[in-house]
Amino acid sequence: MRPQDDYATAVTPDPLAIAADLAERLAATAVERDRAGGHPKHERELIRASSLLTLSIPTEFGGQGADWATVMSAVRILAKTDSALAHLFGFHHLQLAGIQLYGTELQQRSLLTATVRQKLFWGNALNPLDKRTRATASPAGYILDGVKSFSSGSVGSDWLTVSAWDSEADAALIAVVPTEQAGVHVEADWDAFGQRQTDSGNVHFEKVYLPTALVLQVPGQAPTARSTLRSQVAQLIMANLYLGIAQGAFDAARDYTLEQARPWFASGVDDAIDDPFTQHRYGQLWLTVRPAALLADEAGRQLDAAIRKGDAVTARERGLVAIAVAEAKVLAHRAAIEISNQMFELLGARATSARFGFDRFWRNARVHTLHDPVDYKLRDLGRYALSGRVPDPTPYS
Amino acid sequence: MRPQDDYATAVTPDPLAIAADLAERLAATAVERDRAGGHPKHERELIRASSLLTLSIPTEFGGQGADWATVMSAVRILAKTDSALAHLFGFHHLQLAGIQLYGTELQQRSLLTATVRQKLFWGNALNPLDKRTRATASPAGYILDGVKSFSSGSVGSDWLTVSAWDSEADAALIAVVPTEQAGVHVEADWDAFGQRQTDSGNVHFEKVYLPTALVLQVPGQAPTARSTLRSQVAQLIMANLYLGIAQGAFDAARDYTLEQARPWFASGVDDAIDDPFTQHRYGQLWLTVRPAALLADEAGRQLDAAIRKGDAVTARERGLVAIAVAEAKVLAHRAAIEISNQMFELLGARATSARFGFDRFWRNARVHTLHDPVDYKLRDLGRYALSGRVPDPTPYS
Amino acid sequence: MRPQDDYATAVTPDPLAIAADLAERLAATAVERDRAGGHPKHERELIRASSLLTLSIPTEFGGQGADWATVMSAVRILAKTDSALAHLFGFHHLQLAGIQLYGTELQQRSLLTATVRQKLFWGNALNPLDKRTRATASPAGYILDGVKSFSSGSVGSDWLTVSAWDSEADAALIAVVPTEQAGVHVEADWDAFGQRQTDSGNVHFEKVYLPTALVLQVPGQAPTARSTLRSQVAQLIMANLYLGIAQGAFDAARDYTLEQARPWFASGVDDAIDDPFTQHRYGQLWLTVRPAALLADEAGRQLDAAIRKGDAVTARERGLVAIAVAEAKVLAHRAAIEISNQMFELLGARATSARFGFDRFWRNARVHTLHDPVDYKLRDLGRYALSGRVPDPTPYS
Amino acid sequence: MRPQDDYATAVTPDPLAIAADLAERLAATAVERDRAGGHPKHERELIRASSLLTLSIPTEFGGQGADWATVMSAVRILAKTDSALAHLFGFHHLQLAGIQLYGTELQQRSLLTATVRQKLFWGNALNPLDKRTRATASPAGYILDGVKSFSSGSVGSDWLTVSAWDSEADAALIAVVPTEQAGVHVEADWDAFGQRQTDSGNVHFEKVYLPTALVLQVPGQAPTARSTLRSQVAQLIMANLYLGIAQGAFDAARDYTLEQARPWFASGVDDAIDDPFTQHRYGQLWLTVRPAALLADEAGRQLDAAIRKGDAVTARERGLVAIAVAEAKVLAHRAAIEISNQMFELLGARATSARFGFDRFWRNARVHTLHDPVDYKLRDLGRYALSGRVPDPTPYS
Repeated sequence: MRPQDDYATAVTPDPLAIAADLAERLAATAVERDRAGGHPKHERELIRASSLLTLSIPTEFGGQGADWATVMSAVRILAKTDSALAHLFGFHHLQLAGIQLYGTELQQRSLLTATVRQKLFWGNALNPLDKRTRATASPAGYILDGVKSFSSGSVGSDWLTVSAWDSEADAALIAVVPTEQAGVHVEADWDAFGQRQTDSGNVHFEKVYLPTALVLQVPGQAPTARSTLRSQVAQLIMANLYLGIAQGAFDAARDYTLEQARPWFASGVDDAIDDPFTQHRYGQLWLTVRPAALLADEAGRQLDAAIRKGDAVTARERGLVAIAVAEAKVLAHRAAIEISNQMFELLGARATSARFGFDRFWRNARVHTLHDPVDYKLRDLGRYALSGRVPDPTPYS
Repeated sequence: MRPQDDYATAVTPDPLAIAADLAERLAATAVERDRAGGHPKHERELIRASSLLTLSIPTEFGGQGADWATVMSAVRILAKTDSALAHLFGFHHLQLAGIQLYGTELQQRSLLTATVRQKLFWGNALNPLDKRTRATASPAGYILDGVKSFSSGSVGSDWLTVSAWDSEADAALIAVVPTEQAGVHVEADWDAFGQRQTDSGNVHFEKVYLPTALVLQVPGQAPTARSTLRSQVAQLIMANLYLGIAQGAFDAARDYTLEQARPWFASGVDDAIDDPFTQHRYGQLWLTVRPAALLADEAGRQLDAAIRKGDAVTARERGLVAIAVAEAKVLAHRAAIEISNQMFELLGARATSARFGFDRFWRNARVHTLHDPVDYKLRDLGRYALSGRVPDPTPYS
Repeated sequence: MRPQDDYATAVTPDPLAIAADLAERLAATAVERDRAGGHPKHERELIRASSLLTLSIPTEFGGQGADWATVMSAVRILAKTDSALAHLFGFHHLQLAGIQLYGTELQQRSLLTATVRQKLFWGNALNPLDKRTRATASPAGYILDGVKSFSSGSVGSDWLTVSAWDSEADAALIAVVPTEQAGVHVEADWDAFGQRQTDSGNVHFEKVYLPTALVLQVPGQAPTARSTLRSQVAQLIMANLYLGIAQGAFDAARDYTLEQARPWFASGVDDAIDDPFTQHRYGQLWLTVRPAALLADEAGRQLDAAIRKGDAVTARERGLVAIAVAEAKVLAHRAAIEISNQMFELLGARATSARFGFDRFWRNARVHTLHDPVDYKLRDLGRYALSGRVPDPTPYS
Repeated sequence: MRPQDDYATAVTPDPLAIAADLAERLAATAVERDRAGGHPKHERELIRASSLLTLSIPTEFGGQGADWATVMSAVRILAKTDSALAHLFGFHHLQLAGIQLYGTELQQRSLLTATVRQKLFWGNALNPLDKRTRATASPAGYILDGVKSFSSGSVGSDWLTVSAWDSEADAALIAVVPTEQAGVHVEADWDAFGQRQTDSGNVHFEKVYLPTALVLQVPGQAPTARSTLRSQVAQLIMANLYLGIAQGAFDAARDYTLEQARPWFASGVDDAIDDPFTQHRYGQLWLTVRPAALLADEAGRQLDAAIRKGDAVTARERGLVAIAVAEAKVLAHRAAIEISNQMFELLGARATSARFGFDRFWRNARVHTLHDPVDYKLRDLGRYALSGRVPDPTPYS
């Protein structure tokens, strides 16, 4: 019996069973797709066919109405075998969260219903630190021009969430656009050494007409405590991606140790799993991944509770969710980096053969954990621990 | 608002409110009593008067029938201000657990009822690694001779749990004896540099008559999965003691930083709490204590569930409790040592003045965390993580 | 053969042999003096009688003319058994360094010759962050008034180096005064939990007349690269104190493990030194102390070379010495804290008995390493590593 | 001025200047060759043309007679830009060390002279843990059959050092063979994710005739303290390879931070190098690489001294060299892994673009540091620190 069997989480079995099945299918080609990079057209269709794209959509719009903790668990499960596809999946739901948190009732109804009916796959073009996409007011909406970098899931998406800078209002708007709309061009130029199939590209806008009906937040619209929960959805997706990588790397290491590792000649033991240093290191690594999982679950529950409060959620409550998410994210970050890095001390030189593809855990963790600096999360946690100050709502906190 | 206010645990308020009140009273003299050492006669009476000595006794015997998670929380609360007295309190309840897990129904009824009626305070003389106390079979019981070291809470106790080696049976028995019985002599010779008021002494037995009715486990009696849960009660008490020290040290550091610390001349900030290195370190320390608290709570729930199963609890279930407790104990160990050690980097030289007594956190944590070696806990966790193997039941696992 | 025998440093044997002999004599009472605290009158006399007070004084003034690397080695040797007395010894030589780096030829001759002839013991009242001591210009010098805290070695000293704030010049002067002079009052109020016998007190000045001949640096006198080397002498004394504590703690732990430790019952070995986790931890701790020793030696050589250059030393050269000293100081800081803290994991609960006094290593290291914050040393090293920027000369860098 | 300029080592400038020049030439194509993998035919010729292949050959045989510390420095310099080619270079000299330590005077003369005259490049087929290559005694020597894995530098080599198992003698012999000899077949099947151009292959032997003249050590020949120094040469080459990777990664990170990094939006600074967390982390990383360099230099000096003693070197002296080398190797291992892993926290997401190739530092370090387990080096150091016990001479210690 493997350790994880003892910690089965008590969520509704269906979506997570589907996710586990999907994860297994992605696993079959994960090593070679990591090597090849490029657009995972076929695997996107597997996700679409799994029905999981409607997981976070309320039942009133035809979705499955799962809570966010369940969505997060699904992200984690997928990330154990393919963290790039898990990212596409997670960020699809992030866009749906954005519609629910920013959009009017009418926008929610029309966009979410369409997502269910047409099985839409959403991508992100919201990178708030890149202000090169400009919005110019026009009679019935805006005209978008410019470029947006680090747009995860944009390549091959059906719709995009986008932010654009309105220099007249000196503020940004947030809107949605169909990826196929005239003037939108997605450039598949992501070339990082990890998370290679996240379809992150540069999205170019050339005189793209944006009707008012597709604007979720007009420039300068004051954010509410509720609307700023979107960045916590994003951050908790990250945490679960990291955690999935950590768990996937741990499982891969353990399986290799059990099945293939040889004891070191100087160890005096007959079986690699009896080496005391090996046991001790596995104990250490276990203590990076277990607490991270508990804190990610706890943060998921807190996020759910806050979102369920609707407009009644206060800035303080929102801030405490941000703290819970930050705790989980830092621990998951560390777990992913520690395990994917240290696992090799346990496996030995033979495990570096490209046929195992074990380095992909580190490469994926390393690239993804740079989304925003961990030192500033620690600073936020320190400020809270010192004086109870919660993080200012930003796209990263 | 202080951070801990946001994480109020959702247990029945009364016993924990009483514990908090008691902790505050102990705090008033904790620094000077730590300096003086010796027997805390007065403070034992405060505990006795608080009614908390009956917390873990089932209601059918007149006790409060609290679950173990609540007892553990009470231990943790007391340990925040006085970890030596918290140890006396926790080990009192450990002896009561032993009576419930080892004793017959009759023994439970008579001993626990007496504990309630006479407000008895129990001590420990069970150290299983010290086999110098011998039991010799006699017509109606046994005669005890010899000495038992590291007997926590023995000085000033009313009753003791004791183990003794029966060389004829080549095995140990476990029994209870009144501390005042003829031939029992408690030597108050504990002189460690921390946990100074734990009343840990050497208990000497000279021709002590032990009637059969007071023998909880005869020599060689095969332990059940249920009875071996006693060591998990002991281990989880340790974990909560360490955690309480960690939280107490954290709070003391934070209060000092908020109220007294001065910014370093080269920091460029006006207030010590705005120093980025200070914030970062507080964030790091927070991430040692928060996960430890969550895992201790989780282990408490699992221990409760296992104990509630009664004799139906399986060896595997018992083993999984041992893993959960080991996880919590290692994290709490680290949190206590890291915080009590590192807090000084945050406070500066003035905080080393004896009038604050801040070094007692490290001294208490350092002494207490040596109860059993952390490296063997990590080994146990590694074995489990590798192959699902649970720890063998021993007095320490 | 013990490891340290293999690393005998190749310095002139005499002063270090004397230091080793002195260290052994201090060791005999170190534990009890640490417990009692107070003024080590007798031990100061042992140091005075050892002839080592003239170690750093040039031969032309009757001293031994040792280089600074040798003085530092002597500090380290003494700190292995008594870091408080080692501090008195080190800071005595720091005052002599100040006279050599700040004073005129005449001042050097008169003060250093007197130190040799009268076997003077110097103390420090220079704490530059405490500006409460004021200097008021008078016809033939200044009048000093006020108080100076953290004055190491002031209790029982013969002469003091002192800094005082001249509010007219808006700058500080540096001078020397006989401790017995009228108006100087040393208050022995140091009550830290470690380094208890460092004779650090508050020095009170009441209308103390300071003749011009005793002023080493007039207010506002521009520091030279050479004169600012004094803070590097101070910092390197700290580093060697920390290193001595680390080595003393390591040796104490090793001796205990070799002579008294018992194997843990679950280890499966017959002798504690064969426990693989014990061996591994000793390996880890060894790798904190060995590099620190090499870097401290290297920094000593660089400091010597810079001082030998006299006024020709450039700001850049001075800055590189500061980097070498900072490297050594951070490593020694870590070694002292890690070893004095972790040694107990290796020794077990019995080693916490007060009769061993093993906690004094941590208490001494913990108090002393707060002299100035290690995070700012890391910042200085980071700046240098990034852009080659050397630390600004301050009393702490 | 960059930090490293201040630490120029004081060796004869010529060979290291040549190495630096060669390193620069290798740097030009290092990223693309890492990506492509395969046999670096052209770059091997650059090394051959540099004249550095004769660096370790005594002048009496026409070589440059450099000491081993210089050879190690050259390895380190090359490893900063191309650790795979540095490995080929280092292992070439390892084979030359083997001839000097194992061979007769005649063998040394003939093989080393030939190496100088014919500009031979040596490879390794000595992996002692792989006993699949068998030696069968024949009239004038042996016949070799079987395969040898992990043979660094075998692809494209001129000569090989080889070990083979003589089952009659129940011991291994060590010999040299021309790579082009009939029956020797080198299979270029190395496919690790790092150190991709180390030409490590499987060497197949099919009825290969080995004349007695080429046998350096006959089966069962008792090793001398001197001859077992070969494994210390190998281990110190490893240490310098790791250190070169660490330094190369550090320099790459620093240059990126200086030239391209942007401050984080929440940092409040205008320039990335002014971020306090960035400075602090650079300080931390600097303190992994600096001590490793000092200890590697120290180990080089000790190795040189031991080799210069010739047959007079004792087992104890050899053991102390092994300790010095182990210290350097563990620190270099940690420095390489820490810096190549953590550098990304400092650089941010943009630095993960494949065009920089920054991940190659981690991949190279990760693969190479698995040569033998670091935990057993720590065990060896712990044993020494505890009782002065030096490591048993093995191919890895």
